[in-house]
Amino acid sequence: MAGIESLDVLAEQFARLPGIGRKSASRLALAMLEYSQDDIDAFVAAIRDAKEKIHRCPVCQNLTDRAICPVCADPTRDASTVCVVADTRAVLAFEKVRAYRGVYHVLHGLISPMSGVTPDALTLRELLARLQDGTVKEVIVATGATTEGEATAMYIARLIQPLGVKVTRLAHGIPYGGELEYADEITLTHALEGRRDVD
Amino acid sequence: MAGIESLDVLAEQFARLPGIGRKSASRLALAMLEYSQDDIDAFVAAIRDAKEKIHRCPVCQNLTDRAICPVCADPTRDASTVCVVADTRAVLAFEKVRAYRGVYHVLHGLISPMSGVTPDALTLRELLARLQDGTVKEVIVATGATTEGEATAMYIARLIQPLGVKVTRLAHGIPYGGELEYADEITLTHALEGRRDVD
Repeated sequence: MAGIESLDVLAEQFARLPGIGRKSASRLALAMLEYSQDDIDAFVAAIRDAKEKIHRCPVCQNLTDRAICPVCADPTRDASTVCVVADTRAVLAFEKVRAYRGVYHVLHGLISPMSGVTPDALTLRELLARLQDGTVKEVIVATGATTEGEATAMYIARLIQPLGVKVTRLAHGIPYGGELEYADEITLTHALEGRRDVD
Repeated sequence: MAGIESLDVLAEQFARLPGIGRKSASRLALAMLEYSQDDIDAFVAAIRDAKEKIHRCPVCQNLTDRAICPVCADPTRDASTVCVVADTRAVLAFEKVRAYRGVYHVLHGLISPMSGVTPDALTLRELLARLQDGTVKEVIVATGATTEGEATAMYIARLIQPLGVKVTRLAHGIPYGGELEYADEITLTHALEGRRDVD
């Protein structure tokens, strides 16, 4: 950018983030130069702090800054129902609705041969381990209604059904191609209520 | 965000940046958690480096990491013509066109009573200082065709005209309400060629 190398480097860093194009990245880099040193320090501290404190919950694999995440640690949550989701954002969407009282399992991705994401990259080993002691009676596969979401749901259903655990899928109600995190609360509640067996 | 405080703090930091809404801020914060420690270090170093090295050119007030910016330091540029722009992004837009061989003066803002930006906040004192020794024969006021851009141009014209320096304005050609940095190269070239006296 006009021979200001350190500004180019910063803009490239912003451009690496998802959904940030080259124009936006330049804008963000320039905006950051307007920050006071205190503001820069606060931003950097927030990044380092989040990276240091946040890890995966050993039970559900959701992100948390505690030993066990608040959902898994809550004795009033129904541990016999596990809602399997792609990522933390999907958990946040469900928790906002407050219609769901079971627990979660976060896959941290969806199977996508196009992007080179194989089942090995997901937390399926950890999911299977949770199903060994008979506590879990139902697994709700709540991946989005996209090609990857459907493929992942099918894969998980075939993996779990031999264990005798009931596998359900969110009901129609989520618009086709829609991302879970953008579903409104009513759509999400209906999708939960109308969940069906995977046949 | 679901009781992960350090994630909330990081998302709030991203939400402070221009053009980043709450959803995007959460997405960026989560994306950053996926970074390796090396990637985090590189991001932080880019921020600190840019903040440390980049300052205003003492001549034109544009951002630079050198003692004097490359445009002001270039003896082939015509120092008798000064193009006054709102910010560094406008300089980048002009430099990309390569139709302009004069120098710049960066205001770092536009007069905006609505946002509380008064003339004092701009680099007008520095502009007036540059016009004292008679080197500058023409000032092209190249602020955008927005309300703030027009108001700032008028203010500058009234300020400079008593000094006997010719003041011109970019020609029509920039669509009304358009931001300078999004103008295409032909529009920008025409606007430069057709610049007119401020009457």
